[in-house]
Amino acid sequence: MSLSILVAPSGFKESLDVWAVTEAIATGIQRAMPEARVLKCPMVDGGEGFVRALVGVTGGTIRRMVVTGPIGLPVESFYGFMGGSGPKTAIVEIAAAAGLSLVPGDHRDPTRTTSFGVGELILDALDHGVERILIGCGDSGTNDGGTGMAQALGVGLLDRDGNHIGFGGAELSRISRIDLSRRDPRLNHVVIDAAVNWQNVLLGDRGVARLFGPQKGATPEQVAVLEHALEIYADRVREATGCDISTAPGSGASGGLGAGIRALLGGRLHPRFQVIMPFLKFDDLLAEADLVVTAEGSLDGLTPVGKIPTEVARRAKARGLPVVALAGTIGPGCMANFDHGIDAFAGIIKQPCSLDEAIRDAQKLLICAAEDAVRMIGVGLERFTL
Amino acid sequence: MSLSILVAPSGFKESLDVWAVTEAIATGIQRAMPEARVLKCPMVDGGEGFVRALVGVTGGTIRRMVVTGPIGLPVESFYGFMGGSGPKTAIVEIAAAAGLSLVPGDHRDPTRTTSFGVGELILDALDHGVERILIGCGDSGTNDGGTGMAQALGVGLLDRDGNHIGFGGAELSRISRIDLSRRDPRLNHVVIDAAVNWQNVLLGDRGVARLFGPQKGATPEQVAVLEHALEIYADRVREATGCDISTAPGSGASGGLGAGIRALLGGRLHPRFQVIMPFLKFDDLLAEADLVVTAEGSLDGLTPVGKIPTEVARRAKARGLPVVALAGTIGPGCMANFDHGIDAFAGIIKQPCSLDEAIRDAQKLLICAAEDAVRMIGVGLERFTL
Repeated sequence: MSLSILVAPSGFKESLDVWAVTEAIATGIQRAMPEARVLKCPMVDGGEGFVRALVGVTGGTIRRMVVTGPIGLPVESFYGFMGGSGPKTAIVEIAAAAGLSLVPGDHRDPTRTTSFGVGELILDALDHGVERILIGCGDSGTNDGGTGMAQALGVGLLDRDGNHIGFGGAELSRISRIDLSRRDPRLNHVVIDAAVNWQNVLLGDRGVARLFGPQKGATPEQVAVLEHALEIYADRVREATGCDISTAPGSGASGGLGAGIRALLGGRLHPRFQVIMPFLKFDDLLAEADLVVTAEGSLDGLTPVGKIPTEVARRAKARGLPVVALAGTIGPGCMANFDHGIDAFAGIIKQPCSLDEAIRDAQKLLICAAEDAVRMIGVGLERFTL
Repeated sequence: MSLSILVAPSGFKESLDVWAVTEAIATGIQRAMPEARVLKCPMVDGGEGFVRALVGVTGGTIRRMVVTGPIGLPVESFYGFMGGSGPKTAIVEIAAAAGLSLVPGDHRDPTRTTSFGVGELILDALDHGVERILIGCGDSGTNDGGTGMAQALGVGLLDRDGNHIGFGGAELSRISRIDLSRRDPRLNHVVIDAAVNWQNVLLGDRGVARLFGPQKGATPEQVAVLEHALEIYADRVREATGCDISTAPGSGASGGLGAGIRALLGGRLHPRFQVIMPFLKFDDLLAEADLVVTAEGSLDGLTPVGKIPTEVARRAKARGLPVVALAGTIGPGCMANFDHGIDAFAGIIKQPCSLDEAIRDAQKLLICAAEDAVRMIGVGLERFTL
């Protein structure tokens, strides 16, 4: 009898996108076990790859356009229109207009970066008469609470002299009043749903500035500035809308853009995998699988905190399926994954090398790692089939 | 039912000795599969670890002494006496007196290094009244055809003026006549058996100078000098003894020391694993095993050429057992091992690192690698036991 193996990996950040990862693993599996049936489910969260994945599975289209990038300069961006029947739906990936990868290394300062381009994408979608907008949050390089996005859509964020505040997370402390009277009226007639990491909240010790500010380039001093500014922002939002965004689930998503979607755009936030999985038909594929192979650029103690391998493993384990994880690097705390449904893992590195070499050779190494892991699994299989 | 797993690794050169490797793998296996029965068979060839292993398994003793090292300076050395009943037997490891690890980096010149210390160990064993001497060949830093060893035992290697030649492989071209008349007469009454790599021959394209000279520090010019000197040596040996050592199996072992044992000491050469395996009770342990885990510092395309993992795999496969190899590094040509009985392999490196870091952390990494591999095998086992 032949095994059905579901390949459901994440992309390897700064190295291989999720489609390349999926193909590499499938190739390695086939080398080790040519008779195996390989099912493929490239996994995305709300971050990079969200639009391409959802457009791909629904047979939709991509629209390319230039928007204001996170550092205020024009960038080439895109969003998608979902295919199939149903209401006309735009798919927006905030990383495509405000992503960290769009912020050059020497400009990584979330006190200054803006989500304005995300608002421009939404505006363009409204111009195209969409009835629904599905927004994927993740991989942002901003910490402006979605204020840039809101400004692009006509929301007035005014200082005490009645002037509009500027770009960036630090400006939020200058907000004196929020004026919703000139907000694009079409927003009242579209449904906005956002796929967010449900764990991310706006304020506090587990708030977005403290948890993700440093990754986006904030110094400890800047983290304090951002936290203070977001507190003032939350107060002004409460005054203007009655909505408390300070610790609502998902309010911290993408530098607080989740809060802006909810309070200033009237959108709804959803745990990201609840939104995404049905599109990917993950559960249908899982029903046909005997074994699941997932992957992540780095497998470590943070993987269980809502990353793709853990989400894949959780669902696989609900069906009693074994789950194997492959990883570019295996880091501290990796054993924690065993408590979250990962049965075994393997890295791709074969000999001493630099990070650059590992990234350069990632595809080849991943093919070999998949082959080696499946051969190792095969040793176990063989034991009872000899 | 619980699995019986035989751990039969090699040592990791310049990093972990074979006992440390064996224990690390056993620890990793127990972590992944606490119910497994772990059988341990630290594997040695004729090189480093030979004396300790055979003294260990027979309950013998070690004798420590100072001898002339490979660069002519005194070194601390040792040999063993075999335990148990039977003829009084010395166990000599040529690496303990003429090993490459005894040659400082800036003295690695096999035109000058000598096996004299090996002769001194044998002399001391004769002084202790042994009836048999078992010599392990491997890991030498010399290329003198065993002439140093022979000189220490009274063999005259004379130049055309009747003077004794000096130390080192280059001196062999000056041999005019070999005088066996003053050879230690006790050698006529002891049995000398040597465990050698059967593939190693003295002369030619696959001869010891060309194949191993560079590893011992010889330049291409020095390789030519050594090859020429060994040719003259072989001629003089034939004249003196009638024995043709030029391409006899094992004659090239340990820089031609195999030839010296055979022709000048009257010893017998044996394929090393034929000698060693019975002592290690490898076949008895194999009979109880369901799975074999072997290991080597570097697994690559050269591993199938008589290295321990291949020898272990060959015997395991004769019993239809699955074999897994772990390795410090996995190098070019590693796939060749699949044709030699290795079913799956895994490296120990988890993330980008230097060779020094890998060597420093080898024990910890190897424990994890064994655990990870057994978990991966467990995924296969589980498939039919769920």
